[in-house]
Amino acid sequence: MSDPALDALRARMHELKDLGGILGLLTWDQETYLPSKAGPARAAQLATLQGLYHQRLVAPEVGDWLERAERGELDADTRAMLKVFRRERDHAVGVPESLVRALAEAQSTGLETWRQARSERRFDRFAPALTRLLELRREQADAIGHGGERYDALLDHFEPEMTTARLLPVLERLRSALVPLVDALDGAMTGPELFDGRPFDPEQQWRFTLQLLELLGFDLNAGRQDRSIHPFTGGTHPTDVRLTTRIDPRNPSPAVFGTLHEFGHGLYEQGFSPEHHRTSLAASPSMGLHESQSRLWENLVGRSLPFWGFLYPRLRAAFPEALAAVELEDFHRVINRVRRSPIRVEADEVTYNLHIVLRTSIEVRLLRDDLAVGDLPEAWNTEMERTVGLRPRDDVEGVLQDIHWAHGEFGYFPTYALGNLYSASLMLAAEGALPSLWDEVARGEVGSLRAWLHEHVHRHGARLSAEERVQAVTGHGLTDVDFLAYLRAKYSALSGKPLPSPPAPGTPRAQMP
Amino acid sequence: MSDPALDALRARMHELKDLGGILGLLTWDQETYLPSKAGPARAAQLATLQGLYHQRLVAPEVGDWLERAERGELDADTRAMLKVFRRERDHAVGVPESLVRALAEAQSTGLETWRQARSERRFDRFAPALTRLLELRREQADAIGHGGERYDALLDHFEPEMTTARLLPVLERLRSALVPLVDALDGAMTGPELFDGRPFDPEQQWRFTLQLLELLGFDLNAGRQDRSIHPFTGGTHPTDVRLTTRIDPRNPSPAVFGTLHEFGHGLYEQGFSPEHHRTSLAASPSMGLHESQSRLWENLVGRSLPFWGFLYPRLRAAFPEALAAVELEDFHRVINRVRRSPIRVEADEVTYNLHIVLRTSIEVRLLRDDLAVGDLPEAWNTEMERTVGLRPRDDVEGVLQDIHWAHGEFGYFPTYALGNLYSASLMLAAEGALPSLWDEVARGEVGSLRAWLHEHVHRHGARLSAEERVQAVTGHGLTDVDFLAYLRAKYSALSGKPLPSPPAPGTPRAQMP
Repeated sequence: MSDPALDALRARMHELKDLGGILGLLTWDQETYLPSKAGPARAAQLATLQGLYHQRLVAPEVGDWLERAERGELDADTRAMLKVFRRERDHAVGVPESLVRALAEAQSTGLETWRQARSERRFDRFAPALTRLLELRREQADAIGHGGERYDALLDHFEPEMTTARLLPVLERLRSALVPLVDALDGAMTGPELFDGRPFDPEQQWRFTLQLLELLGFDLNAGRQDRSIHPFTGGTHPTDVRLTTRIDPRNPSPAVFGTLHEFGHGLYEQGFSPEHHRTSLAASPSMGLHESQSRLWENLVGRSLPFWGFLYPRLRAAFPEALAAVELEDFHRVINRVRRSPIRVEADEVTYNLHIVLRTSIEVRLLRDDLAVGDLPEAWNTEMERTVGLRPRDDVEGVLQDIHWAHGEFGYFPTYALGNLYSASLMLAAEGALPSLWDEVARGEVGSLRAWLHEHVHRHGARLSAEERVQAVTGHGLTDVDFLAYLRAKYSALSGKPLPSPPAPGTPRAQMP
Repeated sequence: MSDPALDALRARMHELKDLGGILGLLTWDQETYLPSKAGPARAAQLATLQGLYHQRLVAPEVGDWLERAERGELDADTRAMLKVFRRERDHAVGVPESLVRALAEAQSTGLETWRQARSERRFDRFAPALTRLLELRREQADAIGHGGERYDALLDHFEPEMTTARLLPVLERLRSALVPLVDALDGAMTGPELFDGRPFDPEQQWRFTLQLLELLGFDLNAGRQDRSIHPFTGGTHPTDVRLTTRIDPRNPSPAVFGTLHEFGHGLYEQGFSPEHHRTSLAASPSMGLHESQSRLWENLVGRSLPFWGFLYPRLRAAFPEALAAVELEDFHRVINRVRRSPIRVEADEVTYNLHIVLRTSIEVRLLRDDLAVGDLPEAWNTEMERTVGLRPRDDVEGVLQDIHWAHGEFGYFPTYALGNLYSASLMLAAEGALPSLWDEVARGEVGSLRAWLHEHVHRHGARLSAEERVQAVTGHGLTDVDFLAYLRAKYSALSGKPLPSPPAPGTPRAQMP
């Protein structure tokens, strides 16, 4: 039964997974505990290890093993594993190692100058590093290959099988549907100003987020939580999943909703089948599907009234002074209030995708060379006015707000919108399968939902593509129907207002493959 | 001027230093923050990266570059760099990668079963893992090559140019000199029982150690301190030096003296010349010289009366309840009290080296196959009685107490004794060069001593061997004269007793090369 090519391939895959995990530790550490003077040393370490990873991935023998193994009689999992591995290798094989190392260094420089530019509130400090990153990403896209749309090659890295041509109309439909919703809801939901200076003890917030993780069922023996300025989920292995959170001493929202968000990512990572560990299958098939898990817990569960019916007394007990006079319904309204804001990570569920529409359209233009880096702040501000309806006061509130471009990630942003769409479809399926889901949530019990997600999404890893997985669970692929229906139902109830219909009838789900 | 072989060698050396730094992060993390279930995943990551490190070190092209580069006209630093690098490669080149990976795995298993054995207080649980580690180390020693004494090949890894034949008489002399000193001093120094249950708030201890690091001049922007069960100094680069400390809520000694000890290591690591970074020269030439730095700060400075004259009021202010009734002189006597104890890390300066004598003689016998693993606990206990003068109550107090063998390190222990000897010689030279040293220490100022150590030891890295470096600074090589003189002077004063002379006249320094 044992095929030597397949065995060799598996051994290399284990090695690469180990190296990938180590890269995960290096970046986690960079964002949490690295001493300030060690930036250049860490950049060199990352470049070295990324270079070695690349070498071991594209080595000619790996191509031979793949071809030989693919000719064998394979079970479905092995075939899926080879498919995922081949995709990664095919993407890398045309890219010279020198470009890999140059990118790693440009990413470190990008992060550093971005931080500098933010502290000086001056985009021009960051512009040269961004120009360099774009140059290298264009070069990389051309090396990977594409059919005339460079953005496709980068997008495919985060969302395999998605294309710019398919994505942009999805986002345009979201824009058309959401702009009137924001117009109707902005300012319509009253409530107290909760986070206007009342102190929320940071240590108490920290303990609360850890209790929240335990309540939700994150395995803290197979993961941990630390603090970082920009929260993320990382780690080295499904038994070592690392969440970070940010604590604002005047506002518990970043910590609480950040923890809920990263918990969704982390639960997914912990849930890959042990038999897939150290292979290409122990991964999400796309960032969109990954984001669906974070958004499901952050928003669909984490901003729901039943969930807070259970959690709010506990939050109030943790912060009795700040919350004594605030009732559950007021609190629930405040954490869902629709309000135009220039900042993506502070956006409500209705506005959020508009921030993604904006970023994606700009990314595509940058990659097409339709937009020069020097013109970027003005393009951002104009587009922000058109889409969200306000102008940022400066570049820190504008084009400098996100870490992604500083780290050279282009093609990542749209996966947030795809995640929102997938999250609503998956939740609808879960509600159908679990009739007492919301009663349980109202008692603080999320075990059934967790088990359902594990059974239908997490344990499968990368066996199917994101859309195939969603199709297998819900009976249909990518659609905005479920997400828009969710928003309309939730916000009609919250605002007590009739809401405008989408400008055009929603494409039926079956037609949006 | 540029020699292509030398350039290629430098690039490979940079790569290897980066990988070595990354290995440092993996082990630091393993001892500080790794989730409990991630042990096997981390073991695999370590084995993979150690295997790759080995491959890149022993690759045939590296041998060619070395030979070609060595034929060039080289400045002294480059020649020293090549020498150090060749030593590392020559050690590795005979060792097959399979053995490297097997060792990495056996080390992880060793640590795990050692922890298990300690919690069950049963040596036999650990015996199979130790047997396996010894087997592999014997195999490794034979692969490296030696002149009939396997221990030499392992010792050379930690203390280049030291041999068993030279080491054992040094240790025997120490035994003869120290046993009568312990006999004379054990129980002779009275004082209050300070650490008999009074609480010392852990958070307060933590803050105190951080203030201590700042006072001493550890650069916390180029390093950090964390907690771990077994304190150590690690990190990834001279700009990223990581100390750990252990906090006992009933006794501030482990935290305070542990911090002083690791500070000595850490200051050394931070002090390598920037032009040597990412080369073989950014390293200590031996663990003995490294330990000289930790022991110098922990003991020669850190247990001195002038130092505590400055620090004690601050410690007392941090723990007013526990220390209100304790005067400086009593405190100073207690932290220097000579008392037979079965535990090395709790030993006073007089007894300490006897623990090393014991371990080294056992290691040599194990490597010579003169002692079976099954007979080890009894051999330990018998030797403990003969050398230190007491029998451990069980194996946790005995043979299971140290982490070194669990991690497969044989040949490390004697470097502690060498470090003690070197520390006294170096301190004597510093006192000669800095007449106001102790006045400054008494004011909490250690800048001159730090600068002197930097100038004469730290910045040189591995340019010279340990003994050559000590020779360059003090005018002589390894000797016990300075150390024994230091002990006798200190303990005559502390105990108010005349102390027995060494059994034989001390070999004059010049004769102990």
